[in-house]
Amino acid sequence: MPFQFDLLKKDHTTAARLGKMTTAHGIVNTPAFMPVGTQGTVKSMLPEEIKNCGAQIILGNTYHLYLRPGHEIIKKMGGLHKFINWPQPILTDSGGFQVYSLGALRKITADGVMFNSHIDGSKHFLTPQKVIEIQEALGSDIMMCLDECTPYPASEKETKKSLELTAKWANLCKKAKKNDEQALFGIVQGGTYLDLRKQSVEETVPLGFDGYALGGVSVGEPKEIMYAIAESITPMLPENKPRYLMGVGTPEDILFGVSCGIDMFDCVIPTRSARHGLLFTNKEKIVIKNARFREDNAPLDETCDCYTCKNYSRAYLRHLYIANEILAMVLNTIHNVRYYLRLMEQIREALDKNRFIEFKNEFLNKKGGT
Amino acid sequence: MPFQFDLLKKDHTTAARLGKMTTAHGIVNTPAFMPVGTQGTVKSMLPEEIKNCGAQIILGNTYHLYLRPGHEIIKKMGGLHKFINWPQPILTDSGGFQVYSLGALRKITADGVMFNSHIDGSKHFLTPQKVIEIQEALGSDIMMCLDECTPYPASEKETKKSLELTAKWANLCKKAKKNDEQALFGIVQGGTYLDLRKQSVEETVPLGFDGYALGGVSVGEPKEIMYAIAESITPMLPENKPRYLMGVGTPEDILFGVSCGIDMFDCVIPTRSARHGLLFTNKEKIVIKNARFREDNAPLDETCDCYTCKNYSRAYLRHLYIANEILAMVLNTIHNVRYYLRLMEQIREALDKNRFIEFKNEFLNKKGGT
Repeated sequence: MPFQFDLLKKDHTTAARLGKMTTAHGIVNTPAFMPVGTQGTVKSMLPEEIKNCGAQIILGNTYHLYLRPGHEIIKKMGGLHKFINWPQPILTDSGGFQVYSLGALRKITADGVMFNSHIDGSKHFLTPQKVIEIQEALGSDIMMCLDECTPYPASEKETKKSLELTAKWANLCKKAKKNDEQALFGIVQGGTYLDLRKQSVEETVPLGFDGYALGGVSVGEPKEIMYAIAESITPMLPENKPRYLMGVGTPEDILFGVSCGIDMFDCVIPTRSARHGLLFTNKEKIVIKNARFREDNAPLDETCDCYTCKNYSRAYLRHLYIANEILAMVLNTIHNVRYYLRLMEQIREALDKNRFIEFKNEFLNKKGGT
Repeated sequence: MPFQFDLLKKDHTTAARLGKMTTAHGIVNTPAFMPVGTQGTVKSMLPEEIKNCGAQIILGNTYHLYLRPGHEIIKKMGGLHKFINWPQPILTDSGGFQVYSLGALRKITADGVMFNSHIDGSKHFLTPQKVIEIQEALGSDIMMCLDECTPYPASEKETKKSLELTAKWANLCKKAKKNDEQALFGIVQGGTYLDLRKQSVEETVPLGFDGYALGGVSVGEPKEIMYAIAESITPMLPENKPRYLMGVGTPEDILFGVSCGIDMFDCVIPTRSARHGLLFTNKEKIVIKNARFREDNAPLDETCDCYTCKNYSRAYLRHLYIANEILAMVLNTIHNVRYYLRLMEQIREALDKNRFIEFKNEFLNKKGGT
């Protein structure tokens, strides 16, 4: 079944939208958050736990899976879904952002990116055709085009050159794609320059992708700039295609993105924070190792319906964290991922009931601006 | 409900027994293996996973829980069962063995053991009365007496002195015990000297405990000596009380212990091995990082009914282990714990069907003596 996006409802006061993506491995209600499963696992979580937290789609990192265990092995093992025991939708990135993050270890040419593996130093060359080949071997439901992620800061000239390369590669990715079951999204670059972002939209959208992402955000630029890009550029994207704000963000960022008309998000914040004992709650962000939780028999968050909150006290979670127990990471991750996915459920419910702006304001006021 | 042990059946060719312990938190079928939950968690496992692996009882370490988070906090939080979300039976050791393991950090007197915490160096004094107080605060179903674990090697004179101290402490523990809901086991010491082991039995049994343990085994002595102790001393223990071989062992050790009339075992081997990627199977012990599993789409063990074997390939488990993912420890631990608990189920079934010796021989032949 080919990829499909249905725009179900538009908010009456903001640019927010309620939608539904249909993929080869099932349905994703939007706005959606994708927990990050970098190396073929959302760190510390069983697939059943991810699903129980309300996830309908997860993200896999092409760069990591290409290097280890290798896309060919995953293909032989029956594809990524089977390999990792996650039968629901998966989006894979193109590897562009990870390669960009390698800094001195990579070199960009007109044809692709030469880089050294962070694992063993081995040399690799990723081209637009190659990243499609890899993602087709992985069998993800949504593939991303290879892009050049413009660094922050970058001059207007560099940024323009970069977005033009990204658009050229997008065209090559589209042509390389063989499998109709897998969707392919284009990526809008243009750094912090709104006119260059606009140029990127104009060069990317006519190529005709199944969805569009805003890339090169959350790379160190001030938050106001990221917000300005989301606010100005999202409405330029086709209304009937899903829009994805890559690598974003905090709960507040997600609410902002949704109000701009973004449909999809991914971020390591819930999972990484959990492993560091930073836990999201209805009232505050908790540092679980804090001595004030030593004899606290309450759950992390009285309003939370996650497995962790239903079965364990803050005192126990503090003990596990301080004792450096693996179960600390397991239970903390379940909670934070559920927190994010419950937020998405609440957003969708608010959109459905025509009260998104009220929900957003209530949420931001409750958090006291944290 | 007070503790009860029912001897259900005696094997016709060995000293093996089928039994049932009834505790305040439920029933334990024997011979039983207790997964080790040192710091209030069987490392990397959710309580539901422990239960699904077939565990009816787990072990908690008094030494660790006393130091962190502290038995008084656990008591305030509703006791150990509630704190760790494990409503089934728990046995706690006395802390004696852990203190013994501290070596230069502890000093033994006639009244108890003075030691420095391995966490922060703070000074502590454990007496027979104190370890009962701690275990009553934890609320375990089976408590252990404070013993002095004789080192290996030790002279006959040292060993004799040590077992006499252990017997004296056992008497003090018995007197200190206030709670009728909790059982208390005595510990037989005597090192590698069978006549001293016999003396220890003669000094301990008349005190009248709910069960008896063989302590001071698996402390570095040759395996033949441990086997000789189990074989000679177990039959001297009261038939109508459970017998516990502390800290033992490999699957082969357990089969040997059962054939000597042992009812209970605990050991970190399944959990610790799992975290190091050493996995028990029907055929061999697998080192999962081995390159031969790179493209192996089979489960760890075709005959295993655990969650890991039902859902994941060796290739995926190898990938997770090499990528240093937390999920590697989670999935490996589930498998090894299930392996041990399935072995206990098979032992009990064989005893029930009067074919224990056949089962034992088949098992040992299949393993090729590993």
